[in-house]
Amino acid sequence: MARVYNFSAGPSMLPLEVLKTAQKELIDYQNSGMSVMEMSHRSPVYDAIIKETEADFRKLMNIPDNYKVLFLQGGASTQFAAIPLNLMKTGKADYVVSGQFSGKAFKEAKKYGDAKCIATSEDKTFSYIPEITPDMVREDADYVHVCYNNTIFGTKFPEVPNVGDKVLVADMSSCITSEPVDVTKFGVIYAGAQKNMAPAGLTVVIIREDLMGNAREDIPTMLDYKTMADNDSMYNTPPCYAIYIAGLVYKWALKNGGLEAMKERNEKKANILYNFLDNSSLFKATAEKKSRSMMNVCFVTGDADLDKKFCKEAAEAGFVNLKGHRSVGGMRASIYNAMPIEGVEALVEFMAEFEKNNK
Amino acid sequence: MARVYNFSAGPSMLPLEVLKTAQKELIDYQNSGMSVMEMSHRSPVYDAIIKETEADFRKLMNIPDNYKVLFLQGGASTQFAAIPLNLMKTGKADYVVSGQFSGKAFKEAKKYGDAKCIATSEDKTFSYIPEITPDMVREDADYVHVCYNNTIFGTKFPEVPNVGDKVLVADMSSCITSEPVDVTKFGVIYAGAQKNMAPAGLTVVIIREDLMGNAREDIPTMLDYKTMADNDSMYNTPPCYAIYIAGLVYKWALKNGGLEAMKERNEKKANILYNFLDNSSLFKATAEKKSRSMMNVCFVTGDADLDKKFCKEAAEAGFVNLKGHRSVGGMRASIYNAMPIEGVEALVEFMAEFEKNNK
Repeated sequence: MARVYNFSAGPSMLPLEVLKTAQKELIDYQNSGMSVMEMSHRSPVYDAIIKETEADFRKLMNIPDNYKVLFLQGGASTQFAAIPLNLMKTGKADYVVSGQFSGKAFKEAKKYGDAKCIATSEDKTFSYIPEITPDMVREDADYVHVCYNNTIFGTKFPEVPNVGDKVLVADMSSCITSEPVDVTKFGVIYAGAQKNMAPAGLTVVIIREDLMGNAREDIPTMLDYKTMADNDSMYNTPPCYAIYIAGLVYKWALKNGGLEAMKERNEKKANILYNFLDNSSLFKATAEKKSRSMMNVCFVTGDADLDKKFCKEAAEAGFVNLKGHRSVGGMRASIYNAMPIEGVEALVEFMAEFEKNNK
Repeated sequence: MARVYNFSAGPSMLPLEVLKTAQKELIDYQNSGMSVMEMSHRSPVYDAIIKETEADFRKLMNIPDNYKVLFLQGGASTQFAAIPLNLMKTGKADYVVSGQFSGKAFKEAKKYGDAKCIATSEDKTFSYIPEITPDMVREDADYVHVCYNNTIFGTKFPEVPNVGDKVLVADMSSCITSEPVDVTKFGVIYAGAQKNMAPAGLTVVIIREDLMGNAREDIPTMLDYKTMADNDSMYNTPPCYAIYIAGLVYKWALKNGGLEAMKERNEKKANILYNFLDNSSLFKATAEKKSRSMMNVCFVTGDADLDKKFCKEAAEAGFVNLKGHRSVGGMRASIYNAMPIEGVEALVEFMAEFEKNNK
């Protein structure tokens, strides 16, 4: 078996060690006589899995006791509706539009109230993160929504935006668990798990307890955070297997030094790639330096045909899914936690060779 | 490894053959160099998986071309809201309440319009399916909603209810693919996949094309059937791995004779169990004969302590998850497609022995 280096933006690489454990346990989980896929979600054996997964996630992210962790379905896209349906009390919310997904979140919020875009980087194809200051936020806004890392454009907030005393809501789908974050600075953090934590089909929400219980009356029950929290994410059947894999990934991250170590490794990987790009005569990073993502490194040659040739030859050499998002073109190397440093080193070597051959 | 006979109501047993294939392919799917869990949902290799899964499902269920198949998330519980949000045009819908889940669906629909319960079996603890005739349906109702098989109470509609020319919507979570159904008699069929088709986290919707496109303006985008259909279930990242397993299960069912063969086998299994119950001096089936489910066989001894003892001893003997739903107590043997006949035969043998020892 030859594992490829998979630079997919999501779903994406999982630690090989995790996959090996999953494979070993697939038919018979720890002498239970069944697969995790076959377990009643209300059985003691599964209960232990989900409780341990939550405990490990709390430890990894250093989540305070006054925050609930919810294991949901529907992806971040479902949260785009759930956020306003749960949090819009006065009916006003402020959005920072720094990419396609934050744009979608903003559009969805407008269905439910007075959502305002207080800053955007659309003027420069979302190649940077706009600066946010407390005075930009409306006095009576219920929350400020940001997308912390923009997968498509390869940008990330360089620091937690200052929204004064307002509730900060962040979509962290593509950077969660990539480095430590101070959870207390956020009201809600949510993330589709398929980039850095698990296979697709699991959405994790971290929410400060006092923000629950104010949902609109006509909210679909399954989108009501209070209902999900009161039932420990088991109002209905949760995505059990994806939660189990997330649990294995959290254990792997803890064993490998937690989020401080993840950050160090991720910075190292990103630096290798950005340093190469900054010194290349062929390739060019597209995101502004101060807004660069550690997870999604976007670059171009400036020639669409050459970009295509690069992606093709890279794939043949075992570097797959390097094609940029269909809306922007170019290339994107997504280097989440599970991508080993050797993968990035090998990619840069390949890029140098390609550059030499395509001058 | 000793596999147990798992009578869980859901998530539940999967065919061993399917689990073995999944295990073999877990780290490297067909020389792609990656797990299905790691694949971009927009990659050619995954595209082939989801397309083949849909094609096999259509073949298995004999789904006409004017019906769309959607692979969604959020379970049947999310559909309880999606159905009225998508289908209530005049604002009226009629519901048959034959158990807990149809009750939840009814309650959810009331949030969005004039939902009326036109028949219920609550008077006898949902132990039967109420008869439905076209004159019970309101002239201007947009649809009639039923739960086709009631997992908790072990009942099933003996035939497709006659709702005249009204659109029939059916939650088939616990009986889908257990026997052939005439899809053309339904406007929408939906099902959580975790009972008869896949691990939890996948919801399948079969919808007649002309019923889409009338959703309320404030519907969460992710609940809008038209959006999901227009994007071939890829408006956002679908639950890729659960879809892959569903695909393996559909292939297994087709290889084993399709739904006619499934029905024959399921009838045989149910008959073994019901025949035993009808002749037992200790155990008693709780559902009325004409409404009995082939999938969920509910029974009691009439003594809660003895029920408990039975479940305990059964589990020790390798017959697990026989405890009835927490809301009704007693026992429930869920015998979905993947439960082999030998499992039911062995259970009945064990029950006979228990009966002898507990006179």
